[in-house]
Amino acid sequence: MIKPGIPNGTRDFGPVVVRKRNYIFRTIRETFEVFGFQPLETPAMENLSTLTGKYGEEGDKLMFKILNNGEIFPKAQAATDNKSLVAAITEKALRYDLTIPFARYVVMNQNDLALPFKRYQMQPVWRADKPQRGRYREFYQCDADVVGSNSLLNEVELLLIYDTVLTKLGLQGYELRINNRKILSGLAEVIGKPELLTDITISIDKLDKIGAEGVRKELAARGLTDADIATIENFLAISGTSEEKLTQLKTLLQSSPTALKGIEELSYVLNSGFGTFNTTPEIDVTLARGLNYYTGMIVEVKAPPTVKMGSIGGGGRYDDLTSLFGLKGISGVGISFGVDRIYDVLEELQLFPQEAQQSTKVLFLNLGDESARTCFNYMMQLRTKGIAAELFHENAKMDKQLKYANKRGIPYVVILGEAELQEGLVSVKNFSTGQQEKIKLEALPEYFGIS
Amino acid sequence: MIKPGIPNGTRDFGPVVVRKRNYIFRTIRETFEVFGFQPLETPAMENLSTLTGKYGEEGDKLMFKILNNGEIFPKAQAATDNKSLVAAITEKALRYDLTIPFARYVVMNQNDLALPFKRYQMQPVWRADKPQRGRYREFYQCDADVVGSNSLLNEVELLLIYDTVLTKLGLQGYELRINNRKILSGLAEVIGKPELLTDITISIDKLDKIGAEGVRKELAARGLTDADIATIENFLAISGTSEEKLTQLKTLLQSSPTALKGIEELSYVLNSGFGTFNTTPEIDVTLARGLNYYTGMIVEVKAPPTVKMGSIGGGGRYDDLTSLFGLKGISGVGISFGVDRIYDVLEELQLFPQEAQQSTKVLFLNLGDESARTCFNYMMQLRTKGIAAELFHENAKMDKQLKYANKRGIPYVVILGEAELQEGLVSVKNFSTGQQEKIKLEALPEYFGIS
Repeated sequence: MIKPGIPNGTRDFGPVVVRKRNYIFRTIRETFEVFGFQPLETPAMENLSTLTGKYGEEGDKLMFKILNNGEIFPKAQAATDNKSLVAAITEKALRYDLTIPFARYVVMNQNDLALPFKRYQMQPVWRADKPQRGRYREFYQCDADVVGSNSLLNEVELLLIYDTVLTKLGLQGYELRINNRKILSGLAEVIGKPELLTDITISIDKLDKIGAEGVRKELAARGLTDADIATIENFLAISGTSEEKLTQLKTLLQSSPTALKGIEELSYVLNSGFGTFNTTPEIDVTLARGLNYYTGMIVEVKAPPTVKMGSIGGGGRYDDLTSLFGLKGISGVGISFGVDRIYDVLEELQLFPQEAQQSTKVLFLNLGDESARTCFNYMMQLRTKGIAAELFHENAKMDKQLKYANKRGIPYVVILGEAELQEGLVSVKNFSTGQQEKIKLEALPEYFGIS
Repeated sequence: MIKPGIPNGTRDFGPVVVRKRNYIFRTIRETFEVFGFQPLETPAMENLSTLTGKYGEEGDKLMFKILNNGEIFPKAQAATDNKSLVAAITEKALRYDLTIPFARYVVMNQNDLALPFKRYQMQPVWRADKPQRGRYREFYQCDADVVGSNSLLNEVELLLIYDTVLTKLGLQGYELRINNRKILSGLAEVIGKPELLTDITISIDKLDKIGAEGVRKELAARGLTDADIATIENFLAISGTSEEKLTQLKTLLQSSPTALKGIEELSYVLNSGFGTFNTTPEIDVTLARGLNYYTGMIVEVKAPPTVKMGSIGGGGRYDDLTSLFGLKGISGVGISFGVDRIYDVLEELQLFPQEAQQSTKVLFLNLGDESARTCFNYMMQLRTKGIAAELFHENAKMDKQLKYANKRGIPYVVILGEAELQEGLVSVKNFSTGQQEKIKLEALPEYFGIS
């Protein structure tokens, strides 16, 4: 008998963890809902024709492909290399993110959707990345996107969603950092090397990690002159309040209409006058987040610096995602929550509320048939009112039953012994206070707050 | 550009359907929780060593296997037939049901679990069955199981869960049919052909479909004598109330201690005195449900006969499931809800409540910046109180905005025009009544029930 296990990089979630995760999911979902976003669920498997080429070469490699069912041997024999083999024996793969399936859905349902379509989606995705601390091969994404609207009101609303969710979760000190792709493009334009946009942003994105000197070296290695690097260093030196940063950006990048448009968008989002933030979004000119996707706002949420977790969410505006599937001219903007990291942050800061961890509240001890039947009726009353309650499954030694309550973390135990039954009384033990009191049997529902 | 699609037998669930499905999931989950069951989630992918051979030959065929990542060509070339090929290039498959992963989890966590372990699990499973009406390649299972207890109290509780959930969903006229594997075994014993148990049960299970004459022919073809068939026909002729059926069973099967044990168990479950049923479970001696699995109670839930849907759930007691993974002597009993079918039943009987379908409740029209900012503040008040509200994303023609509200099925529209803004008034249009009224701006939260 082989010792059973689970695939590398995947996880079982036991009861305690599921409850805490559900608390996060619930908080996010309720916020998405009150902001008018609508739920969507797509299949775990997508056709390879939908997914291939959408995530770069690396993505194609990291996709979990599904072996075709039935006889594949003849087809495999006809293959001449790895690529033709895989193509011959697979036609589906597991979802790699939620954005491409969303774009596919929008295109397939374009005639029925009321635009703008505000959808949220909370489902697992799968990637054959090398597993490591905090990186899994199966993990949930929680996305909210709006397609079919160019209005910057959407950007503001999405930032407010971050702010609302994280506040509801009890987090303080998180950071909402925003930037605009057009400003980065403008920087490359001002330097006169728009073709090096990606190289520039990849380097400056590392400022936190490798420092100013490191960035300078990288930029030089990527073919930028001393004059270029000086401009970029001026760009990175931008500081002060958001208003001050915007003013400095305008001066530095005034020769680029693209940059000025980006600055204007950033300014609108920061000063829209819509809503009140608990944590005000801040400009971070180094923020790029992969970039090639984004066309307007870029946002990243950082965990409170004390927990050293880094990014717990991000997103931005992208144009024409649906054109991948033949539907042109539809702009989109979206955000994503990193639930695994948010979980770790809440755990580290002990922010999970008690009710997120509550399982069974009351255990009725099983002390023989007559007592058990009486208990059962009261237990059903509690259950009807939403209180989780159990009757121990058999008339075992009291010690064993109390041990079960203890191991399960059940806070209340109800004891209806023979003597008590005759007196019409019942004992209730509260494990958290250690107190045990005898009350009238009929008063039991009231004891648990049921009138 | 290829027209995008999704794999055969899979489904996208749009907003309206997700909300209705979530209503079913929520109702089931809340019931599982108050009955003291704990949530478990396992990975979508399991090792093939965990799954293979657990669902029969057919199951092994219908599993969706995951192609190993990386270079598979050399291994594929070394394969000599389909079987060795598949074995060389796959080591994981998608979950085929929730029971085997549950057993695997129990074995892996046996030292940490408080027994009995009452778990529920609501996750998708995947099977490469030929898709047809009502049969999908990706579908949810919703299971509740108890392992580590032989007590028949569990059987009673699981039946009560069915009764509670279906009642909460507003269903009437559903049937809870129960049987006991030991009674079927006893019948084969009484005939003197225990080795034909499976043949007998497969045939009598078809009574509804092929009639008494059809069953007789099948039994004869399967090698049963006229005398055997006469006994089986007496068995099938058992009728009356549950008590009458139990009495007749005892007489007919009195020579089989196994049968008598099964009858005793059935009798206990029906007369335990625990709980009150809205729909009383009934004995159905033909009920087998695949059988090889089950060792005690077998249960099946039938939709109300008017909707012709058949089974909407089922389960039973199984012994020693975990011995598949080396842990012996652990008995289990469980039930499953067929969510797709329950969905169809509720749809057909129009039993989905309004709140299960509610999305955004209020649309604030966007009539320019000043009005929009004022609206935004009121909108955020509604959202904070859990009311889903939206501000139209841009200052478009009123007609376009009303069309959006209409297409989305948003019941209330708030109109804050320039004149109204100056008067401190606001118009609220209720689409369901067609009424439009002007109220004081400050009275808006109160209008929507917020004090």
